[in-house]
Amino acid sequence: MDITKLSINQKTTIHWSLPECIDGCVRHKIPSIGIRREKIKEIGVKESALLLRNSGLKVSSLCFAGNFPYLNSNQRRERLDDNRRAIEEAFLTKANVLVIVGGVLPNGDIKRALSLIERGIDELLPYAQDSNIKLGIEPLHPMFAASHSALVTMEETNNLLDHYDSPYLGIIIDAYHVWWDPKLYEQIERSKKRIFGFHVNDWITPIYDYYTSRGMMGDGFIKLKQIRKAVEKAGYEGPIEVEIFNSKLWDTSYDEVLELCKERFRKYV
Amino acid sequence: MDITKLSINQKTTIHWSLPECIDGCVRHKIPSIGIRREKIKEIGVKESALLLRNSGLKVSSLCFAGNFPYLNSNQRRERLDDNRRAIEEAFLTKANVLVIVGGVLPNGDIKRALSLIERGIDELLPYAQDSNIKLGIEPLHPMFAASHSALVTMEETNNLLDHYDSPYLGIIIDAYHVWWDPKLYEQIERSKKRIFGFHVNDWITPIYDYYTSRGMMGDGFIKLKQIRKAVEKAGYEGPIEVEIFNSKLWDTSYDEVLELCKERFRKYV
Repeated sequence: MDITKLSINQKTTIHWSLPECIDGCVRHKIPSIGIRREKIKEIGVKESALLLRNSGLKVSSLCFAGNFPYLNSNQRRERLDDNRRAIEEAFLTKANVLVIVGGVLPNGDIKRALSLIERGIDELLPYAQDSNIKLGIEPLHPMFAASHSALVTMEETNNLLDHYDSPYLGIIIDAYHVWWDPKLYEQIERSKKRIFGFHVNDWITPIYDYYTSRGMMGDGFIKLKQIRKAVEKAGYEGPIEVEIFNSKLWDTSYDEVLELCKERFRKYV
Repeated sequence: MDITKLSINQKTTIHWSLPECIDGCVRHKIPSIGIRREKIKEIGVKESALLLRNSGLKVSSLCFAGNFPYLNSNQRRERLDDNRRAIEEAFLTKANVLVIVGGVLPNGDIKRALSLIERGIDELLPYAQDSNIKLGIEPLHPMFAASHSALVTMEETNNLLDHYDSPYLGIIIDAYHVWWDPKLYEQIERSKKRIFGFHVNDWITPIYDYYTSRGMMGDGFIKLKQIRKAVEKAGYEGPIEVEIFNSKLWDTSYDEVLELCKERFRKYV
């Protein structure tokens, strides 16, 4: 894939601050960046917004808000407040989309967590609409159903989107999370016109840690080109984010990582 | 759950030979055992069958055959030969069911692998029927889609079973593999009268290895009682296998492991 579509999610270069990552993307002629809230926090959202504007980089997404399931009304209010702050951050940084990760309940109750995720979206969507910020719901791999999100299939996510049918609510398709799904291509088609983001990386084996052993494109099993074409056919024309959680990559030189991302993006995406 | 239903899958006590595991189950008054082909191989199938018969233990299952996807006709023949040997082993050891794990293609092609799994079942089913051996297809967790089986949802498995509608073909429900699924309970109901096995264990976090960090019942997130009741409601009355792949547990005393299995089985299943 042509690198005019390339975006680097900050998670790929985890030890870089936002200024360092902006600088890296500019130096390596990468046109877009996917930013992280924890990195914005380090220097403040106004400073972040200023740096991003001056860099000329497009902001493909802000990661992430959501985490809706709550145990009591205090927690519910805290989550909503935090999610509203995320919308404001997305607005100020001119992010294409705010990525939403559903969240879990500590007792592992999937059905109840899914219902609380829906309730959370009910509450958040009006704020997103008022700020003209799109929310992109990212189904995670089922491996994360206990720890990160009970929402783990594209089908369940599309069911939810059907229910709202809002131009402010769409799906983020991350190859790592969905590649295994026998319904992958039918669900991509079903996501037509509401795909708000596309993330690439690879599935490598063996997994040595469920969170940090994600692979570089081309190193694993995912048919990225095939998925990318399906995503395009479903109407997505936006940036494609490289988002790699990989503890080995994190310990190498990020200038080399960015060059490798470009090379692999051209070849495998 | 009453321990009259308890079966210990040999994987739980991985360093024990079959004679040792049989002896352990008898000493600890565990009525059933789930046996493994690699353990049978160590002492031969006839000796295994004899020991099992003399022990009075029921054999809840033989694990596993399948691994259908092939790259060439040689490999196809080898797999079929091996699967036919597995049927013979199941027959000789009087196993309730032969567990089938679908398998993968080395290039990660899910659709093609699923189609080859179906073709493999086409070939194997007549042999199973002739030997009066039930085949139980076990959908694995999507985490194993690159390495162990492209068949990773109960829905896909049930679609396959519908296609055959044979009394010799059913499903093995392993809590670890399916607990995350938003369609879990509807798919258990759909499996009515064709559930050939039920495996228990737990999902613990963080995963430190995708293969060997499975948890003991009660240590994780899975609602085992709720799933067990749904499985019973769908007509399953057979033994319930404790199958735990856990490198930490594997390094402890297996007499203690068996007592712990009994305690947790009573309390959490």
